Amino acid sequence: MEYLTGVRHKDTLEISELRKQAQPGQTVKVNGAVHAIRNMGTVAFVILRKREGLLQGVYEEGTAKFDLKDIKEAATIEVEGVLEENEKAPGGIEIRMENLKILSQPQDEMMPLAISKWKLNTSLEAKLNYRSISLRNIRERAKFRIQEGLTRAFRDFLYSQGFTEIHTPKIGAKGAEGGANIFKLEYFHRPAVLAQSPQFYKQMMVGVFDRVFETAPVFRAEKHNTKRHLNEYTSLDFEMGYIDGFEDIMAMETGYLQYAMELLKKDYAQELKILGITLPEVEKIPAVEFSDIKEKVSEKYGHKMRNPFDLEPEEEQLISQYAKEEWGSDFVFVTHYPSKKRPFYAMDDPKDPRYTLSFDLLFRGMEITTGGQRIHDYEMLVEKIKARGMSQEGMEQYLDTFKHGMPPHGGIGIGLERLTMKLIGEDNVRETTLFPRDLSRLEP
Amino acid sequence: MEYLTGVRHKDTLEISELRKQAQPGQTVKVNGAVHAIRNMGTVAFVILRKREGLLQGVYEEGTAKFDLKDIKEAATIEVEGVLEENEKAPGGIEIRMENLKILSQPQDEMMPLAISKWKLNTSLEAKLNYRSISLRNIRERAKFRIQEGLTRAFRDFLYSQGFTEIHTPKIGAKGAEGGANIFKLEYFHRPAVLAQSPQFYKQMMVGVFDRVFETAPVFRAEKHNTKRHLNEYTSLDFEMGYIDGFEDIMAMETGYLQYAMELLKKDYAQELKILGITLPEVEKIPAVEFSDIKEKVSEKYGHKMRNPFDLEPEEEQLISQYAKEEWGSDFVFVTHYPSKKRPFYAMDDPKDPRYTLSFDLLFRGMEITTGGQRIHDYEMLVEKIKARGMSQEGMEQYLDTFKHGMPPHGGIGIGLERLTMKLIGEDNVRETTLFPRDLSRLEP
Repeated sequence: MEYLTGVRHKDTLEISELRKQAQPGQTVKVNGAVHAIRNMGTVAFVILRKREGLLQGVYEEGTAKFDLKDIKEAATIEVEGVLEENEKAPGGIEIRMENLKILSQPQDEMMPLAISKWKLNTSLEAKLNYRSISLRNIRERAKFRIQEGLTRAFRDFLYSQGFTEIHTPKIGAKGAEGGANIFKLEYFHRPAVLAQSPQFYKQMMVGVFDRVFETAPVFRAEKHNTKRHLNEYTSLDFEMGYIDGFEDIMAMETGYLQYAMELLKKDYAQELKILGITLPEVEKIPAVEFSDIKEKVSEKYGHKMRNPFDLEPEEEQLISQYAKEEWGSDFVFVTHYPSKKRPFYAMDDPKDPRYTLSFDLLFRGMEITTGGQRIHDYEMLVEKIKARGMSQEGMEQYLDTFKHGMPPHGGIGIGLERLTMKLIGEDNVRETTLFPRDLSRLEP
Repeated sequence: MEYLTGVRHKDTLEISELRKQAQPGQTVKVNGAVHAIRNMGTVAFVILRKREGLLQGVYEEGTAKFDLKDIKEAATIEVEGVLEENEKAPGGIEIRMENLKILSQPQDEMMPLAISKWKLNTSLEAKLNYRSISLRNIRERAKFRIQEGLTRAFRDFLYSQGFTEIHTPKIGAKGAEGGANIFKLEYFHRPAVLAQSPQFYKQMMVGVFDRVFETAPVFRAEKHNTKRHLNEYTSLDFEMGYIDGFEDIMAMETGYLQYAMELLKKDYAQELKILGITLPEVEKIPAVEFSDIKEKVSEKYGHKMRNPFDLEPEEEQLISQYAKEEWGSDFVFVTHYPSKKRPFYAMDDPKDPRYTLSFDLLFRGMEITTGGQRIHDYEMLVEKIKARGMSQEGMEQYLDTFKHGMPPHGGIGIGLERLTMKLIGEDNVRETTLFPRDLSRLEP
């Protein structure tokens, strides 16, 4: 019997520890993956890939007590050597290598992608086919660190605002939004579906915790094969009670974006730099009504409105262009969506029930959030279900919740991969998805 | 057009704000759900349920400018009144009510459960059938605040240890562990499965980020209908590279548990008190070898060993009892599980390949974690797959990753609901699952 007493101290140092705890001239130990080897003849550079970035090892015959040939690209190694400052090295430091320990060896095979290049010059298709290799590229990897920051900010901000985190089931008897885009499965000889959203559950939990959030996968069997659609994605969802109006929800999302940009600046500065990202201004986000902005955009850009009750992708682009030109904003809330394009639980605008107290948030030309106030009155909910010719079947427990009192409430769902994509400036949502699922892609 | 500038200031106060920002004698505004009404004749108490706890409103004719009959149980209301101190009131404060605003009304129907009782005296079945109501009970709700604390601690601790959060797909072409307990679905006319674990993905991502974690649902089509099995649960997974041995993984998990207990003490003290929880000691956790402890337990308790290669639930109980009696610990790592009971990717012990460098963590009689070192060498992995008579089909990209170098690594998966259950002292994992999924339960 032995005891575990907590995280073990390691004598190998990470890059930030080399900077903070070690002195130039000191002998240090580091480990990492061999990202690249650059043999210049009398001297060679062995670039290690570590979680915090790249670290340069310098190989010189005489100093090093091993043969350079012992080091293969893609091996993982441990190196002992003297820490030195060098302005030209990544991060301004390097290790003059003395001793080598091989931790693992790769097979004698060509890497399928040249990951040590600054930009991975290959197709998206190839990047996705070799996902576990392509992400070893420093720029590719950085995208998902930014994505971590966005998720982390969402949770931390909402904790600070009194939200409780929930975990709701992804297998259920009926989908929240209805419609055809539901994945079906067999659940012990019963029909079941995968959750399109945590909608019903998060509403039910507003009656318990007042404010809740979830960051979890959702599943959409949509047959769109576009640059903006995924069949499985991560949804950042919150739902809040005791709202005075649906503006409270937009205000909370604005607060999140403000918090997220600050967190990225503070804790993800290196990744922002690697990707050359300029963060958007989020001090104030304009909100405009659906019908108004459609008209404004139609006038300003001569766009012909085809469908007065929905936004085409092209219109989303133009609205964002308008918001940028007129109000200098990369974000714009479009409010009061037509009732017929929103789910039954959306609260209609009492001033004009053809429209709802709901909104989308557009970011640089694309919808990244749908949100709004929900109906909290049982009778009103039942009426609307009836008016739509829908059945209550499978919604009994959701509906019963409203019989027993629910505060005025509403919430949002943010598509994490879309938010990341637009922040980074990518034009395909698969670029910011670790392992995308689409019509043709189920692997890796 | 209007601007959203961040979270809106509210003139209603939360319980912590009443304590910190308001003075006795001050007129304040609060909102909440009517949890209970206790009419004592000359005076009535209106107990509001708020996210931070219960708040007592005092109704007296003359002071209140409304009729007590206007308030229904389960309504949500806004109340204006004078803040007063009262030792007997929950939290030591109460509001002498003056003005009332009804925010929402329930239907005129009996509540299905007496949620305002301190203990909800009803069956688990009834609690689950009326989930959105039963969780309004203060004790029921508190369980999931503790669960939040455990999840939050997992992430915050791992961020501090240089881990990156990942989101891996739940729909895939093949399951990680193999076997029969896989949910199948049709994915655009192709066969697909739901992920039993993020195992392959988190290993692949160790080659990218060195250390990764994920907190997400996993799906197991197991036909066990027991108190400890769920068909969908939340798995707290991490995987770390550059380990010196599998002890590093146990040490990291111990570090997490230490951090989690501190966080619960600090930020969830109220919930610990409501549930009467005494937190376990986690300063040091004993680790014993599988074969050793089986023998020890057999000797000490006269338990007859039926299967030398697996632990029965009863043996898990006895091992925990042993650890408590001999070492005073609620936790115990059982190491070196037999190779034939572990998946192919588990690293065999070079000293005795009948056993693996893997472990389970038992907590108060139940396995809450499975973890271990994984094979990082391509040839070794391929050999083991062959030796087991398995096919490489569907694992090509997972296996290819190892061709191109992987550090020595390993990780764990913690069942969040089980951890919560054992911490709280419940005996059925459904008690600590918001919406459990089991053989017979697909709703709500």
